[in-house]
Amino acid sequence: MASRVNDQSRASSNGLKGKVLTLDTMNPCVRRVEYAVRGPIVQRALELEQELRQGVKKPFTEVIRANIGDAQAMGQRPITFFRQVLALCVYPRLLNSPDFPEDVKRRAERILQACGGQSLGAYTISSGIQLIREDVAQYIERRDGGIPADPNNVFLSTGASDAIVTMLKLLVAGEGRARTGVLIPIPQYPLYSAALAELDAVQVDYYLDEERAWALDIAELQRALRQARDRCCPRVLCVINPGNPTGQVQTRECIEAVIRFAFEEGLFLMADEVYQDNVYAEGSQFHSFKKVLMEMGPPYASQQELASFHSVSKGYMGECGFRGGYVEVVNMDAEVQKQMGKLMSVRLCPPVPGQALLDLVVSPPSPSEPSFRQFQAERQEVLAELAAKAKLTEQIFNEAPGIRCNPVQGAMYSFPRVQLPPRAVQRAQELGLAPDMFFCLCLLEETGICVVPGSGFGQQEGTYHFRMTILPPMEKLRLLLEKLRHFHAKFTNEYS
Amino acid sequence: MASRVNDQSRASSNGLKGKVLTLDTMNPCVRRVEYAVRGPIVQRALELEQELRQGVKKPFTEVIRANIGDAQAMGQRPITFFRQVLALCVYPRLLNSPDFPEDVKRRAERILQACGGQSLGAYTISSGIQLIREDVAQYIERRDGGIPADPNNVFLSTGASDAIVTMLKLLVAGEGRARTGVLIPIPQYPLYSAALAELDAVQVDYYLDEERAWALDIAELQRALRQARDRCCPRVLCVINPGNPTGQVQTRECIEAVIRFAFEEGLFLMADEVYQDNVYAEGSQFHSFKKVLMEMGPPYASQQELASFHSVSKGYMGECGFRGGYVEVVNMDAEVQKQMGKLMSVRLCPPVPGQALLDLVVSPPSPSEPSFRQFQAERQEVLAELAAKAKLTEQIFNEAPGIRCNPVQGAMYSFPRVQLPPRAVQRAQELGLAPDMFFCLCLLEETGICVVPGSGFGQQEGTYHFRMTILPPMEKLRLLLEKLRHFHAKFTNEYS
Ligand SMILES: Cc1ncc(COP(=O)(O)O)c(C=O)c1O
Ligand SMILES: Cc1ncc(COP(=O)(O)O)c(C=O)c1O
Repeated sequence: MASRVNDQSRASSNGLKGKVLTLDTMNPCVRRVEYAVRGPIVQRALELEQELRQGVKKPFTEVIRANIGDAQAMGQRPITFFRQVLALCVYPRLLNSPDFPEDVKRRAERILQACGGQSLGAYTISSGIQLIREDVAQYIERRDGGIPADPNNVFLSTGASDAIVTMLKLLVAGEGRARTGVLIPIPQYPLYSAALAELDAVQVDYYLDEERAWALDIAELQRALRQARDRCCPRVLCVINPGNPTGQVQTRECIEAVIRFAFEEGLFLMADEVYQDNVYAEGSQFHSFKKVLMEMGPPYASQQELASFHSVSKGYMGECGFRGGYVEVVNMDAEVQKQMGKLMSVRLCPPVPGQALLDLVVSPPSPSEPSFRQFQAERQEVLAELAAKAKLTEQIFNEAPGIRCNPVQGAMYSFPRVQLPPRAVQRAQELGLAPDMFFCLCLLEETGICVVPGSGFGQQEGTYHFRMTILPPMEKLRLLLEKLRHFHAKFTNEYS
Repeated sequence: MASRVNDQSRASSNGLKGKVLTLDTMNPCVRRVEYAVRGPIVQRALELEQELRQGVKKPFTEVIRANIGDAQAMGQRPITFFRQVLALCVYPRLLNSPDFPEDVKRRAERILQACGGQSLGAYTISSGIQLIREDVAQYIERRDGGIPADPNNVFLSTGASDAIVTMLKLLVAGEGRARTGVLIPIPQYPLYSAALAELDAVQVDYYLDEERAWALDIAELQRALRQARDRCCPRVLCVINPGNPTGQVQTRECIEAVIRFAFEEGLFLMADEVYQDNVYAEGSQFHSFKKVLMEMGPPYASQQELASFHSVSKGYMGECGFRGGYVEVVNMDAEVQKQMGKLMSVRLCPPVPGQALLDLVVSPPSPSEPSFRQFQAERQEVLAELAAKAKLTEQIFNEAPGIRCNPVQGAMYSFPRVQLPPRAVQRAQELGLAPDMFFCLCLLEETGICVVPGSGFGQQEGTYHFRMTILPPMEKLRLLLEKLRHFHAKFTNEYS
């Protein structure tokens, strides 16, 4: 039998074989992947928590995870109506219980009837339960002032993450300079850079304009595209609106301009709209790319390809753990759409509890239903508190010398810019760390506050930021902001 | 501004632009993906169901989906204990209800305490809730007679599918003849071929021996490996035990031989053991690769790399919709294991209801707990019925002239070989169909029975098979088997 080419190298002198799978032999694309939201800083936060539990003395009593948009982990309560319906779906014997409102029961029955064997435990078709796709399409129509949505263009997914990666996967092709280029905003949500690294596509950065509240500037898109054409074939433009980590909400004019640009330049548009319910600033309003596209009329409405993503993880519900989401595709080639369905079928189906939850999110109780009042009150409470926290964050940061924070118009994050003294930058370089990573690590060690350095999202060379969620409860958030401000002053002092 | 290289081709004479994303420009690897379990035959089944609903007359009144291992879709009831605990996790106010046993409440509280914000709605760490990883490790230890399992080697996943694809993704590298080759059984579960196509890895087929009840033969592994070395770098060996679609259960001797082979040849072992609870035949027993590996002692136990997969979708629970699963890695390079964690973190976390369900599956009620009796009875009922159905299937098929069926020792499928008359083969070729696809389509049109042609799983050239689940309820299954036998006789007659 032929011996392996690398048998020799594998068998070392002591008779031991080396590993088959090592850093050197593993998939090099996977090796290049980075994902800051769960990076080294979070690793360290986990260790600190463990040390605290073991009684190690620290200058703080708890680690506050302001690193990830995870509302319920920060104490936000689930929406009662959603969980009641889900409980009945999970354990249908509760349908006979007198403790649940009639509309809750009707909803659970409706969902179960659409499931194989009337159970959440059956696989669904790969694109998701047809009834739920229809409900999603109706939601989109309502949201977009009556512009039609076709359930067959809706694919349910395992969180928005899954749908975004699947869409990118379809779009990646070519070798060398013909490789697909994907324009993404900087700063970005690092799922994009990670997925592009994994898929070996070319990441093309366009910078949001921090001076103009993270506006998306067409001239900058043009610059990015022009420079990218030497090294790849740019075919996709990603927009995150409302923005993560930047918190801006795009104006309608901006969206129109982006669509025109994408059309002229032959780019497939991906609109990440998972924060569509998270708009706080006065004068800001969410405009879906789909709606704007359709209202622009032909040739845009009839030709521009678009994929829009949504999720149950954000908004007022924050049901991250259920991994529900969807993508709506518009003007997609019919054959490609079939291919997309096929690709999704390999992993069988999105989690059914997440599908059920999505159904409730897109069709909440109507005013005539018994659950409406409480639902509405819970929803409003969350959104009003988020709006207040957005304002508070901006305000406290902007009172601090050396910190500057754009308005948090939407989403769940602030992304303040911090001045770091040259000696801190130097110290970071000595340690082999990005300066804002150094800042964030020091912050964590001294205060227990866990935020993510701007370098994990991308930023203009020579500027430093961090991303902090606005999700901790109001009083905790206030304390946290004050601590952060203090720490920054002290840090600045120490390294000046 | 520089115009796009392909602007010209995109703007056609009528002023319309072509699509950015077409069959020609899309990811060619995705285009090559095939997934028979959800392929054209299932598409047709869906259409037929719709026609039936619309009142179109058919020679049958319902479509019976024996194409997919989806127990609850076929009427199997969920295990009460699992669903009770989950309902409480979903809607914790039920913890105060008198209608749930104490152990159910304790379990729900235990899981919730391990969740961020004590809610299923929070993201978990990417490898899954630590408590659940520990419970999985304990399960593995019990299963393997006390051989230790390290929770840090356990990664929870979105069904086993997700973990299998992730593992393959890590293992794929190289270009041209240095490209990673992956040995998979033929017939196989088509997730493997689909994932390899998507990842652009080289599929290396080894054939199971139908004459010896689908045994895995080392000489055949050697043949496959030898021939593959000309075109790729074989680095991975996948085994499915108990087998899908083939239903065999590997002997301990066979597993030892496979491990020795993998070790000698420098192959990473992937053991798909999602049917580990589905063993029916007398004299058959499930042996985990991990246990056998460890009992073989060094150098195997200390060096051979192994990943073993499990799922909540199969066994006696059949909770496919929850998408729970895990992989345990053994002897994996520590740095690679970190990379695996990083890769998983990009998609944030597996669905938390699925994680919770997995926790219950790996730590069912103990004999002293109030839920034990009912749990045990429900579990036994399902497994006993599956065993009876396995036997019935084998028996009825083997009474039919022209059909030959190996014993269904385990898993949930029979994979009988059917003789197809030459004129049927010819007719299929005229229609551009695989002969067994033609047979299955005719079967579906005439009887409403939906099974998957053997060509979707792979088979020896010139042989024809189909895969049928043994999941329909006993009396329906009997009817179905009789119908199938009749249809085959009629079909043979018609084309002779
Ligand atoms: C902009 C953006 N897109 C997508 C996602 C993915 O969310 P999920 O997969 O939980 O739906 C997130 C999560 O933080 C996000 O911020
Ligand atoms: C052999 C085998 N492996 C893996 C899977 C994937 O199952 P899941 O992703 O539902 O855990 C299946 C499903 O049928 C299977 O048969």
